[in-house]
Amino acid sequence: MNIASKSSFVLSRRHLLGIEGLSQQDISGLLDLAEEFVELNRQVEKKRTSLRGRTQINMFFEASTRTQSSFELAGKRLGADVMNMSTSSSSMRKGETLIDTAITLNAMHPDILVVRHSASGAVELLASKLDGCSVINAGDGAHEHPTQALLDALTIRRNKGRIEGLTVAICGDILHSRVARSNIILLNEMGARVRVVAPSTLLPPGIERFGVDVARDMREGLAGCDIVMMLRLQRERMNGSYVPSVSEYFHYWGLDTKKLAFAKPDALVMHPGPMNRGVEIDSIVADGAQSLIREQVEMGVAVRMAVLEALSRNLPNA
Amino acid sequence: MNIASKSSFVLSRRHLLGIEGLSQQDISGLLDLAEEFVELNRQVEKKRTSLRGRTQINMFFEASTRTQSSFELAGKRLGADVMNMSTSSSSMRKGETLIDTAITLNAMHPDILVVRHSASGAVELLASKLDGCSVINAGDGAHEHPTQALLDALTIRRNKGRIEGLTVAICGDILHSRVARSNIILLNEMGARVRVVAPSTLLPPGIERFGVDVARDMREGLAGCDIVMMLRLQRERMNGSYVPSVSEYFHYWGLDTKKLAFAKPDALVMHPGPMNRGVEIDSIVADGAQSLIREQVEMGVAVRMAVLEALSRNLPNA
Amino acid sequence: MNIASKSSFVLSRRHLLGIEGLSQQDISGLLDLAEEFVELNRQVEKKRTSLRGRTQINMFFEASTRTQSSFELAGKRLGADVMNMSTSSSSMRKGETLIDTAITLNAMHPDILVVRHSASGAVELLASKLDGCSVINAGDGAHEHPTQALLDALTIRRNKGRIEGLTVAICGDILHSRVARSNIILLNEMGARVRVVAPSTLLPPGIERFGVDVARDMREGLAGCDIVMMLRLQRERMNGSYVPSVSEYFHYWGLDTKKLAFAKPDALVMHPGPMNRGVEIDSIVADGAQSLIREQVEMGVAVRMAVLEALSRNLPNA
Repeated sequence: MNIASKSSFVLSRRHLLGIEGLSQQDISGLLDLAEEFVELNRQVEKKRTSLRGRTQINMFFEASTRTQSSFELAGKRLGADVMNMSTSSSSMRKGETLIDTAITLNAMHPDILVVRHSASGAVELLASKLDGCSVINAGDGAHEHPTQALLDALTIRRNKGRIEGLTVAICGDILHSRVARSNIILLNEMGARVRVVAPSTLLPPGIERFGVDVARDMREGLAGCDIVMMLRLQRERMNGSYVPSVSEYFHYWGLDTKKLAFAKPDALVMHPGPMNRGVEIDSIVADGAQSLIREQVEMGVAVRMAVLEALSRNLPNA
Repeated sequence: MNIASKSSFVLSRRHLLGIEGLSQQDISGLLDLAEEFVELNRQVEKKRTSLRGRTQINMFFEASTRTQSSFELAGKRLGADVMNMSTSSSSMRKGETLIDTAITLNAMHPDILVVRHSASGAVELLASKLDGCSVINAGDGAHEHPTQALLDALTIRRNKGRIEGLTVAICGDILHSRVARSNIILLNEMGARVRVVAPSTLLPPGIERFGVDVARDMREGLAGCDIVMMLRLQRERMNGSYVPSVSEYFHYWGLDTKKLAFAKPDALVMHPGPMNRGVEIDSIVADGAQSLIREQVEMGVAVRMAVLEALSRNLPNA
Repeated sequence: MNIASKSSFVLSRRHLLGIEGLSQQDISGLLDLAEEFVELNRQVEKKRTSLRGRTQINMFFEASTRTQSSFELAGKRLGADVMNMSTSSSSMRKGETLIDTAITLNAMHPDILVVRHSASGAVELLASKLDGCSVINAGDGAHEHPTQALLDALTIRRNKGRIEGLTVAICGDILHSRVARSNIILLNEMGARVRVVAPSTLLPPGIERFGVDVARDMREGLAGCDIVMMLRLQRERMNGSYVPSVSEYFHYWGLDTKKLAFAKPDALVMHPGPMNRGVEIDSIVADGAQSLIREQVEMGVAVRMAVLEALSRNLPNA
C-alpha cells in the first residue's frame, strides 16, 4: 500500500490555525484526501512514506490523550519522525515565555508542529514566531479546534452524502467550546444551517452574529434537525455557576431517546468525546443505531493524516 | 539480519490473555521463536520488518516502566509503529468506561494492543469489545501475566535444558501474584512439579486445586528443588496486615544463602523484578552464581518479540 | 540526503562521560562532524540511516524536556530506534539501586544510552556496569555536561572562526554548574582564556586550580571579553542562602546593555537555557544583535547527532 495519493490537493496556506478563512474548496479537498486515509487505515499495512525524513513535534500544553495519540499515529503512518514534547514537568510550564519556546522549537527544525494550548490565540502567536514549519492548531482555549470540525464534517458527509442544506443542532456548552466555534464556521461555509441549543448561561453574548439560530430548549432546538451534535460539559462547569446540578442539566439538556425524537426520524447523533454518560448524553443514545460517535474517532486519524499530508506538500523546499 | 524467521509457528488464537488454555505445543513454539530473537538482540543490527506498517499500542492503566519498555523495544525492533498511550493524566483514568476506551481504540485501528490493568479480567473484557486486533495481557490484577511466565520458562529451559520433571518452588506473596498464577499454569502444563511456599496470610484459599504442593516454611519448601522462584512483596503489604514486619519477613521468608542451601546444590534462583533487596531476597543471592535474574530480563524482550511476531502472523488480512 | 558522512572521524573511546580527557583532535573532529548535521537539519529531508537497527535509550533521572528532546530528535534522524525510559513513576525512582537499573538496561541491549542524573558520578558508575553499549552523559549533578560544552564551542567557532586565543567570561552560578565545568575544561583545552565572574557565595573553593581567572564584579570580569557566557540561576538558589534577592542579583550580576558594554564591542552573548529573563539576563540583551542564544539550541541537535554517529562507529561488532 505504499502507493502515492490519488489526490493532488494542496492547501493554499502554510498553517492550519482554524477553520476561519478556509474556502469550500479547501474543506472539500481535505475531506477527499481524508477518504483515502480512511481506506488505508483499514488495511493491515498502513504505511506511507510521504513524510519520511520530516520531523513532527506534538506540543500539548494542555493534556489530551486522544487528540495527541491521533496526531501521533497519523504522523507515524505517514513516515514522519514524531516527537511528543511534554510540557508538564518542564520549564515551559513554569512561566517560560512562548517566545522562548518558539526559539527552542525553531532550533529543532520541525517541519510540522502540532500545538494545543489553554489560551485562545496562543497557537497563532507561536506560529508567527516560527520559521519554515507548518503549525496545526490542535485546540486553543475557546477559540478553534479545526481538525475536530473537519472530522465531524467528514463523518456527516459519509453518512448523509452531503453537508449543504442539512440542519445541524449544536447543543450544550457553546460558551466554552472551541469545537462549537470551529463547527459553526465550517458548517456555514459548506452551506448547512446551524442552530445552537443551550441554556443562556452557556451561550456567548452576540452568538447570532456567527450566523446561527438560537434555541433555548431542546424541543425547539432539535425540531427538524438532520444532525444533533452534543458538546462535552466540562466537570468544572457542573458546580453551580453555570449549571444548577448534573441531574437538572441532564433533565433539560441531556440527549435521551425522548428528546432525540424531536429531531427528524433519520437524524444522526455526534459527540466529540470524551463523553459524560448521563450528563450531556444518555448511554442508550450514545450506543444506539443513530449514533456516529464511533465513526467520529475513526475519522479523526484519517483527517489528521490528510492535514499533515496536505501541509507537507507546501513545505519550503520539499 | 533482515532475514525471515526460521520458525513458521503460528499461535492458534487471536489474543494472548493468559497462559491458561495454551497447549504444550503453543508454549514450546513460542519459546523456540523467542530463541531466534535472543540471538538477534545480541547483534548490533537488531531490526526486522515483520511488523512494518502495523500499529502497536501500549496501554498501561497501571505504570510499569520495565514491562512497557520491553514491549516498546520489542515492537520497534520488529518494525511496528509503536505508540504508548498514557492513561495517567487522561480522561481514561477519570472514570471513563472501558467500553468508551474500546471505542477509541477500535477507531485507531491498532493491529496489536498491549494492556496492563489493575483489575483482574479487565484485559479480557477490553479484548471482547475490540475488532480485528490482537490483545496481549501485560498483567491484569491478580489474574495473569503470561509473558512473564513465558520468559521464566525460556530462562529455565536454557539453563536446565528442559522444564519437564523439574521441581519449582514459588515463594512469597502467592495471594496477590499474577506472576505466580501464570507460572503455576505454565509449569504444570509443561510437566514440572510446583510447590508454593508462603505464610498462610499470603496464600489464596484452595490453592491446592491448582495442582501444587503447599509448604509453610522455607526448609520444607525448598528441599530438593531445582528452581527457587522468589516473588516481589509489594510495599503496601508490609504494614502489618499481611506481614508482621519487614525484618521478620526477611528472617522467615527472605532467600539468603542459608535457606538456599535447603534446595538442590545446582538449584537456580529467579525473581521477576523489581527486587526488594533485603526483604524477599538477599543481595548475595540475587547477584550470586546461582542467580538467573539478569538473564530473565534479557529473555523478556525476546519473548515479547516472539509473542508479537506469532500473533501478527494471525492478523485478519495479513 | 541519505548520503554517507564526509567525515570519517572516530572517537577514541566507548563512552562520552565528560569533556575531561578529550584531546583537541577529538573536539575538533566532533565539531567538524556536527557541521555536516547543521546542514542536514536545515533540509526538509533530514534522514540518515547510520543508526538503523541500533537501539538508543534515553534515561533521564532528572527531567529536562529540551535536552531529552534534542537527543531524541538526533537519534531518530539517524535512524535509530529511540526509547525514552521515564524514571519518574517507576521503581527506579523509589530507591532501586543503580546496579539493578544497570541489570535491566544490559538485558535490553541498547547500543547507545543517554543518561542524566542529579548525582555527580552516577553516569560513570552506571557506565562501568554496562556491557557493550556506549554511554553519553547528558548531565550529572554539578560534574559535567559535555554535549552542552560541545554545542557552545561549535557556536563560538562558527561565529568567531576559532576558539583559540579568545577570552571567555563565564558568569553567575559557577558553584552548582556542570555547564561551567565542562566549558572550562573544553575552552582551556582549545586554547581560549577563561575568566569566571561570580559572587563569592557562588564560586567553588579552589576554582583557580581549573586554570581560570577569577573576577568578583562584572566590570572587571567582562573587560576585554570576546564571549560572555551567562549561567542559569536555579530558582532554589534565590531564597537567601546564596543570593540576597532576585533584584539585587540582577542589579549586580544580571547582564544588561550597560554591563555588556564592558566587554569588547563585538563580544557575543551566550546562555545554555532555559533563561530567567530579568534575573541573570535582560531581555534586551537576550534577544539583541549580539546574542547567540537561538543558534546555541540549533547547534544542540547537530552536536548530539555528531556524538551519536561518532560513538556508533565504535560499536563492538558494527
